[in-house]
Amino acid sequence: MDFFFKPKGVAVIGATGNKNKVGYSIVKNLTMGYKGEVYPVNPKYDEIEGMPCYPSVEEVPDPVDLAIIFVPASKVPDIVKQCAGRGIKGVMIQSAGFAEVGKRGIALQEELVQIAREKRIRVWGPNCMGLVDAVNKNVFSFVSPSIWDDGLLEGNVSLIVQSGLLSAGFLIDMMSHGTMGISKACSIGNKADVDECDVLEYLIGDPQTGAVGLYVEAVANGKRFLELCRQAEKPIVVLKGGKSAGGARAAMSHTASMAGNVHVIRGALRQVGVVEAHDFQQMADIAKAMAMYPAKEAQSSGRVAILTFSGAAGIVSTDMMSDRGLKLAELSGKTIEALKAVFPEWMPPSNPVDLWPAIERSGAQRAYGEAVKAICADPGVDAIFLHFFIGGVAGRQVDIPYFAQTAKKAGKPIFIWALGKREELRAFMVETQRIGIPTYREIGRVIDAMAGVLR
Amino acid sequence: MDFFFKPKGVAVIGATGNKNKVGYSIVKNLTMGYKGEVYPVNPKYDEIEGMPCYPSVEEVPDPVDLAIIFVPASKVPDIVKQCAGRGIKGVMIQSAGFAEVGKRGIALQEELVQIAREKRIRVWGPNCMGLVDAVNKNVFSFVSPSIWDDGLLEGNVSLIVQSGLLSAGFLIDMMSHGTMGISKACSIGNKADVDECDVLEYLIGDPQTGAVGLYVEAVANGKRFLELCRQAEKPIVVLKGGKSAGGARAAMSHTASMAGNVHVIRGALRQVGVVEAHDFQQMADIAKAMAMYPAKEAQSSGRVAILTFSGAAGIVSTDMMSDRGLKLAELSGKTIEALKAVFPEWMPPSNPVDLWPAIERSGAQRAYGEAVKAICADPGVDAIFLHFFIGGVAGRQVDIPYFAQTAKKAGKPIFIWALGKREELRAFMVETQRIGIPTYREIGRVIDAMAGVLR
Repeated sequence: MDFFFKPKGVAVIGATGNKNKVGYSIVKNLTMGYKGEVYPVNPKYDEIEGMPCYPSVEEVPDPVDLAIIFVPASKVPDIVKQCAGRGIKGVMIQSAGFAEVGKRGIALQEELVQIAREKRIRVWGPNCMGLVDAVNKNVFSFVSPSIWDDGLLEGNVSLIVQSGLLSAGFLIDMMSHGTMGISKACSIGNKADVDECDVLEYLIGDPQTGAVGLYVEAVANGKRFLELCRQAEKPIVVLKGGKSAGGARAAMSHTASMAGNVHVIRGALRQVGVVEAHDFQQMADIAKAMAMYPAKEAQSSGRVAILTFSGAAGIVSTDMMSDRGLKLAELSGKTIEALKAVFPEWMPPSNPVDLWPAIERSGAQRAYGEAVKAICADPGVDAIFLHFFIGGVAGRQVDIPYFAQTAKKAGKPIFIWALGKREELRAFMVETQRIGIPTYREIGRVIDAMAGVLR
Repeated sequence: MDFFFKPKGVAVIGATGNKNKVGYSIVKNLTMGYKGEVYPVNPKYDEIEGMPCYPSVEEVPDPVDLAIIFVPASKVPDIVKQCAGRGIKGVMIQSAGFAEVGKRGIALQEELVQIAREKRIRVWGPNCMGLVDAVNKNVFSFVSPSIWDDGLLEGNVSLIVQSGLLSAGFLIDMMSHGTMGISKACSIGNKADVDECDVLEYLIGDPQTGAVGLYVEAVANGKRFLELCRQAEKPIVVLKGGKSAGGARAAMSHTASMAGNVHVIRGALRQVGVVEAHDFQQMADIAKAMAMYPAKEAQSSGRVAILTFSGAAGIVSTDMMSDRGLKLAELSGKTIEALKAVFPEWMPPSNPVDLWPAIERSGAQRAYGEAVKAICADPGVDAIFLHFFIGGVAGRQVDIPYFAQTAKKAGKPIFIWALGKREELRAFMVETQRIGIPTYREIGRVIDAMAGVLR
């Protein structure tokens, strides 16, 4: 599968110079990051974006590993044959008009499968968005080049998404909101040949992937899928579409997927150590945290210390944690003594640690710093939940890299909930995540992620 | 209580010209929106922000309704006495250092209560953020004047929040992210005199308030509170802090609140028609939708039509709706026929309506437009759930005001889930909400809100 992820030479069949068209976005994305040679193919152009354009893939002079195809569906089978004849190892077919459109499309897709088997060429898609690799800047996709504006936020979560339109929208949404950095986002479309198992197997072996999030409606080869999950040393988060009766009917008409019995699926996933999510955002939230804290067998009894600037937020966090099977850690006498050093006398510290009086007395830097240090040393604490108001004094003065380092040394996952002004908050989230602390704008999201990591 | 919300003349006791101090923020906020006269009071200044500054409240020449007090706690009782002597009707004490700090503070607070009763002056606070009225631009609070940058998003949800720090952070977060417009946000602090019942009663009678969201740890007068909720013609959403054992202990140490038994509270709230939320954001999400669709006795059986650009999003929405007691509407034959007019032949429409093929065939404007029209006319549909990808063709071309109007005529609440690029998405959310459609960036949020409205 390396030729899909790290191809030596990429041909774009159906390239165009018309900036409003999909065939242009594919070329444009390639020119913005991919380090190898790009060969636009279209008989109507001599050059596109300053590169020579070839009338057919057969005229491309150099070796090419991968062809990205965006031409009308009816022309695709012949072009795939040409690619195979040309020694190309993989094609990504981003055109639609196959199994999803009924009889004629199903026939076309079957033809593709046959060509793939006969000619030993791998087919990714059709009807997909292809691949966005934010770490290596390999964007093999017609996703809007506007996705580069936010710098293709790098991370170590890789995604496998069955839905083309959604994968594009979701990526743009995540990148631009700074929700999460990604490693590779793989939109696998109709899965004529390459399926979620092929991609999952590759990502399990990929050193740039720390956790995998999958959206699937149906898994073609359930046995292989579960075996891959079982063997994986990496966290895997799955959002399964079609769990309700109505959802299952919709999945059938969306991708002709047999959704399967929800209880059976849920049990099977749990047995192989997969965490289940219930929506796209939650899948991203949990995967982000698990990629940062990947230990599969966490020796945890879910005891959390909360450091907050707001008594109310501490209380609501405690209530929500209780709903998710997490609990407040009992702080040791030693920890309480250490906390007292930054607290005013009238306020006896307890968990949740409402730091505001300590911030007023000792400053945010010292109050948060001493509290993190003491709590990291407490054997009765499994994880640390930090609250910040960004823009206030507490948010501005704290030393996040020190917290990250201290918690890492102590082997305790640390999670942040932050709220505040939009621009400052986004910058803070991107920065903390770069340092390796999963950060969220909402208490509930942190608790979902924490429950995944401490399970 | 009118003198707190619409005072004729406001004195700021503890005003300062030092831009880094809280006493400056209070004055600055007043100069930015409040239409009446402002009287800074501080013996150290002759003028602040171009206004004459008075050495004491007794020297203020004109009638004053409200005094905002921010001076050290020990000085507060005498100042409140002066205010009462001066004919001032209400004081908002934003200084901290009262019941929340132990014995000495408790004594000070008791002194305040006594003065309030004797002198018949109402006391709001102490230890609070005061009031932010985004509609009338009356910001009687030391909340950071940066809150004005985003134009103090107007709406018709009013909030009552017991937690000072959180109310400030939450407001700034909500305003700047465009999550929700507000009418009045009331931070009531230690509730020495004015409590949640006083404020709730006022807001129930306030024509600029469409729904009320409350965060409370304990209610001083449970009977009055429940009676107010029962009589209210407006939706009320309550987030109760301290529902878990750990949360209840934390509430005790936060505001000395007796949290009470969760099942009893939950049952009582449900009986008087209050919707319960489990976090701050969800409280805002539900309140926003209920303020737009306030009918208390919704004649609904929870049948929802989903119009989506993504099959996957339709499926996941269906699954999540099923978890919340909502269901897919069975579309009538007439509706299906109407939908067929915009769909390609190979795609038989069903609910969830995956519009992508229709968008490709008929354009986003027509596909969404005809679908909304047909579904609004379908007696088997109680509510409409629209999905948009903002930045894509579907998001850009649709006629939201037409949808709002059509749905309103049909008496069907309409809800939007939108994802996309950050700036465009925020602008879209602010605009749709101005038109009267509750919009969210996540499927789960819409479903929470929908469950509140269709309950």
